[in-house]
Amino acid sequence: MDRTKRLFLGRALRSDSLGRTLLPKRIALPVFASDPLSSVAYAPGEILLVLSIAGVAAYPHSAWITAAVVLLMITVVASYRQTVRAYPGGGGAYTVVSGNFGRRAGLTVGGALLVDYVLTVAVSVSAGVDNLGSAVGFVRHNQVLSALAVIALLMLMNLRGAKESGRLFAIPTYAFVIGVLGTVAWGAFRALVLGDTMSAPTAGYEIVPQQTGLSGLAMGFLLLRAFSSGCAALTGVEAISNGVPAFREPKSHNAATTLAVLGALATTMFAGIVALALHTDVRLAEDPARDLLIDGEPAGAGHHQDPVIAQVGIAVLGDGSLPFLCLAAATALVLFLAANTAYNGFPVLGSILAQDRYLPRQLHTRGDRLAYSNGIVFLTLPAALLVVAFRADANQLIQLYIVGVFVSFTFSQSGMVRHWNRLLADERDPAARRRMHRARALNGFGAALCALVLAIVLLTKFSHGAWVSLLGMALFYAVMTAIRRHYDRVADELAVDVPEDRLGMRPSQVHAVVLVSRVHKPTLRALAYAKLLRADSLTAVTIAIDPDDTRRLTEDWRRRHIDVPLEILDAPYREITHPFVLYVKKLRHTHPDDVVSVIIPEYVVGHWYETLLHNQSALRLKARLLLTPGVTVTSVPWQLHSAEAARARIGRRHPLHVPGAVRRGHGHRIRRP
Amino acid sequence: MDRTKRLFLGRALRSDSLGRTLLPKRIALPVFASDPLSSVAYAPGEILLVLSIAGVAAYPHSAWITAAVVLLMITVVASYRQTVRAYPGGGGAYTVVSGNFGRRAGLTVGGALLVDYVLTVAVSVSAGVDNLGSAVGFVRHNQVLSALAVIALLMLMNLRGAKESGRLFAIPTYAFVIGVLGTVAWGAFRALVLGDTMSAPTAGYEIVPQQTGLSGLAMGFLLLRAFSSGCAALTGVEAISNGVPAFREPKSHNAATTLAVLGALATTMFAGIVALALHTDVRLAEDPARDLLIDGEPAGAGHHQDPVIAQVGIAVLGDGSLPFLCLAAATALVLFLAANTAYNGFPVLGSILAQDRYLPRQLHTRGDRLAYSNGIVFLTLPAALLVVAFRADANQLIQLYIVGVFVSFTFSQSGMVRHWNRLLADERDPAARRRMHRARALNGFGAALCALVLAIVLLTKFSHGAWVSLLGMALFYAVMTAIRRHYDRVADELAVDVPEDRLGMRPSQVHAVVLVSRVHKPTLRALAYAKLLRADSLTAVTIAIDPDDTRRLTEDWRRRHIDVPLEILDAPYREITHPFVLYVKKLRHTHPDDVVSVIIPEYVVGHWYETLLHNQSALRLKARLLLTPGVTVTSVPWQLHSAEAARARIGRRHPLHVPGAVRRGHGHRIRRP
Repeated sequence: MDRTKRLFLGRALRSDSLGRTLLPKRIALPVFASDPLSSVAYAPGEILLVLSIAGVAAYPHSAWITAAVVLLMITVVASYRQTVRAYPGGGGAYTVVSGNFGRRAGLTVGGALLVDYVLTVAVSVSAGVDNLGSAVGFVRHNQVLSALAVIALLMLMNLRGAKESGRLFAIPTYAFVIGVLGTVAWGAFRALVLGDTMSAPTAGYEIVPQQTGLSGLAMGFLLLRAFSSGCAALTGVEAISNGVPAFREPKSHNAATTLAVLGALATTMFAGIVALALHTDVRLAEDPARDLLIDGEPAGAGHHQDPVIAQVGIAVLGDGSLPFLCLAAATALVLFLAANTAYNGFPVLGSILAQDRYLPRQLHTRGDRLAYSNGIVFLTLPAALLVVAFRADANQLIQLYIVGVFVSFTFSQSGMVRHWNRLLADERDPAARRRMHRARALNGFGAALCALVLAIVLLTKFSHGAWVSLLGMALFYAVMTAIRRHYDRVADELAVDVPEDRLGMRPSQVHAVVLVSRVHKPTLRALAYAKLLRADSLTAVTIAIDPDDTRRLTEDWRRRHIDVPLEILDAPYREITHPFVLYVKKLRHTHPDDVVSVIIPEYVVGHWYETLLHNQSALRLKARLLLTPGVTVTSVPWQLHSAEAARARIGRRHPLHVPGAVRRGHGHRIRRP
Repeated sequence: MDRTKRLFLGRALRSDSLGRTLLPKRIALPVFASDPLSSVAYAPGEILLVLSIAGVAAYPHSAWITAAVVLLMITVVASYRQTVRAYPGGGGAYTVVSGNFGRRAGLTVGGALLVDYVLTVAVSVSAGVDNLGSAVGFVRHNQVLSALAVIALLMLMNLRGAKESGRLFAIPTYAFVIGVLGTVAWGAFRALVLGDTMSAPTAGYEIVPQQTGLSGLAMGFLLLRAFSSGCAALTGVEAISNGVPAFREPKSHNAATTLAVLGALATTMFAGIVALALHTDVRLAEDPARDLLIDGEPAGAGHHQDPVIAQVGIAVLGDGSLPFLCLAAATALVLFLAANTAYNGFPVLGSILAQDRYLPRQLHTRGDRLAYSNGIVFLTLPAALLVVAFRADANQLIQLYIVGVFVSFTFSQSGMVRHWNRLLADERDPAARRRMHRARALNGFGAALCALVLAIVLLTKFSHGAWVSLLGMALFYAVMTAIRRHYDRVADELAVDVPEDRLGMRPSQVHAVVLVSRVHKPTLRALAYAKLLRADSLTAVTIAIDPDDTRRLTEDWRRRHIDVPLEILDAPYREITHPFVLYVKKLRHTHPDDVVSVIIPEYVVGHWYETLLHNQSALRLKARLLLTPGVTVTSVPWQLHSAEAARARIGRRHPLHVPGAVRRGHGHRIRRP
């Protein structure tokens, strides 16, 4: 298996520079910001898409909507800067909420965050493919297939244990930032200084309004819907607050600075793209096949509507020009990177949830590759499902996305208000109190604004897909509650509630039983070990499946003068478990207070396919014996040559090369406040 | 899992009438004969299909070809009657060949038989669906889907452990025999006595000959091809020789009689169907879409060509008449039953191959449900693949089928010749020698004839698909050789070749190490057990993953006055395996001659999904420790409440309800001669 695995997943990596490097701000920005910055690629389009329902005449409203989104983003960033300062150990929404509002609220946010991770993958990959499609024909005509291929690639990369590399992340993120800002600046220069006329490819198209003569109320509702779509620009902003421990000292200060830079970049890029889209007459329709008229004719089913950022790029930089191709590539890449951050962010959240026993315990221990692999598959499957179900349509997927984001924003900011209230109760220093009051005001404003947006989103998006995410959150909530309940029940069952001697835990004697099939090295070693145990009785037992084998065994036993009595059990059905369990039960029956110690010689092989050829009945017997009261099972292994190779292979793996290591601050532990 | 499993696979069955009932002849016939008799359903059509290449003018040749096939079948039956007498313990081709020609020849036949089992499923199901399609429109239009559904049903039935029931088998098999013989008799009566004119539905169609004006040589080749296609009638004849132990005493005599009855029935049915097909002017074309002309027009892609037996049934009994529908149902059912026999026959062969260490050992022990499940899946997957690849076209699949059948016939009959030669060398009694000479002559003639047929089949069918089966055989041969080599290598490695005391198998001391995480009941039980062991040293070890947990553990330890020293290991990566293995290695380093006995308290849960939540790190640790030399691993289980239910569930299962039990003669063991 290892060889096959290596073929697909690559060689296990060696440890390097472990725990030494924390992230400087210039690397931390791309690591945490590829997700929030990439939303600039799809958020402007979302606004125009909704407005197009009322026709091109409604497009100018997008300026006001953009202003509202920018204001909201500034508020959220300011609010999160308080969180980062208050939680230097990492202030993810789950930590803040469960710390301030308790289990149920925390779990609600936990569910929302899990849904968000899944949707980050689905939305970012779909949007990335959409952008790639504006430059590459094949991708344009096979969007679902391309999106699934990218998701599969991300999964393999992460299963392979690809280290999240700050430097590698930096290149496409900075390329994207420079590309967008450059396009905006060049566009502004061409428009204002050169006086060029720039036209988007769709500038000449017409849009058939779906709703005309809207009443004031209906128009207001449409504007609210456009606004809540535009809020897609905020997705991913909270990433930095999760990752404070990964920053260099002074951690909180550096994180807050990075957050401010992120906010400045994101708002500028977002507003710039919207302005250019309006200037170059970009035309987007919700259902282009029907509502987009090209030379008076509907565009038809095969029409591919380029995303806003691509249209703006074509208008400003020129279709097919090298700068445009670079912009398209950087956009697609930063979106795929954003999807990848979900693979890195999930283990961090999973670890915290597992520590609180809401998820399987092994997610908490860092070295558990199996758990990470499960987590990676856990993210991939629903994301792929969503991509298929929504045909890789980023626009539709975003409707699902925003709910979860604002659930966690709202809860998290409200939690911060409560946090400050708690601190204020004990704080006497006036300067500190003033700082806290100011922080509380910021967080309170953020919470109120986010709650308002959440209400708008629920109101305007519920039937457009938000119910899917709510269902997903409810599902995660239910599963996590069930897991917690199971762990609690087991803990109760295992708790030592009566004095030890009344637990029947003082067995008086040990009866050792060695299971033998042939006289070979593993058997001799197991017998030698059994003798060392000085048990109160020692017997060797064989199960007579093949009469020839049994005869040979008894002969060897005699010939080698093995001084352990050998009992032979009949196996009427040529099957070892049943007769052996009966034998053990009989032994227990005659000595109810004693322990039967079953000793099984095993030979250990190094490859999974070799395992298929050996020890199957021993494995089943062990599983069955573990269900039998008063029995312990001892494996006395004999390592075959191939097992030595396996040991070497295992030694080469390092527990640290798992997704999320970088954003947790390398080797540092996550501590809860 | 058990509940889900039960939903799909049904309740585990209880044992009944175990090992008492052997098969009387009237039940043995349907158990073993559904496969060979069912070939009557497709073999006649195969002859006509090939002849149609030369046009309808070539059809009369089918009489001679049928005569040749009948002669061949009489020879093979007579030959196998000798085998049945000589091998009362079951004379499957593999047993006979490896006993008389050695390993390599035996393995070649083993590979051929495995391919045959897969093809029995694919061919019989496809042919059954074809026949069902002549009466049911939905099946006619969804052949591949229907075939896959039947295969899935067979798989589920067999995974469920459906006992092969002699009585249940009897009904469709006898219905088929009576239906075919009745149709033949009624058709003969109508034709000869009533002088009715009976016309098959295709009687008025024309066939465009693909090859006209064939030279004598080319025509001869075509006739040979038609003959080798007709040999499909012989598939399955050897089944009885495998199943002699399942017959009532005198086993060999009864088996030989049953074989004779089978031969008589099969030849009569086969010849009768061909005769009626000629009489009623059945028209079959290899490519009906192109070569079959209906009113002068090609039939086109959507045309479904009914199998010969259905056309004859329509001609003789009347389309849509109740007798015809019964015949069609019985034909389909007996074909599905024939597919099912592969599921019952495979475990018998697998067990023998496993005994010779060519297949995983667990296939040999009867009770190993896991192995049977794997075997069932092993049969199902390639069969389903073939059905999809050949679009459930029985005609094409049969081209693959015949090779394997005649490989095993030829080898097996030749093996019998050698068998008699061996016996003749020692036999002095003239009467016995006469008998043996006669048997050898019969087997020799059978071997020669089968070899000739095999040559013809290879010559005429190689490019028509026979290469696929040859490839399959080669593949099985290679895998089985590799498995045997692995087992041999391991046996060499484990053999005790030097005196025991030089093996380093006399460890001087045992160091017991109990792995603890919290003070709960399982831990206390493990400590109590460890003390009873009277090891030379006893330490408890915990791995500090969470500082709070570790503090609580040390407090509990002190508070409860546990008199075992507790060591705390650092876990820099929050992962237990690495530090613990290091600790054990260090212990071994200071005491290289001693054994480290690692004692792990485990709690045992009853459901697979609970297992996901527990013991994952302990499991990994155990796997890792088994690779470490000088270490033994002891599990001290604590059964949670849910585990008790699991124990009860396991107790209900019975090892005997596995496929192949009936044809092995219930509880009786297979003995090799």
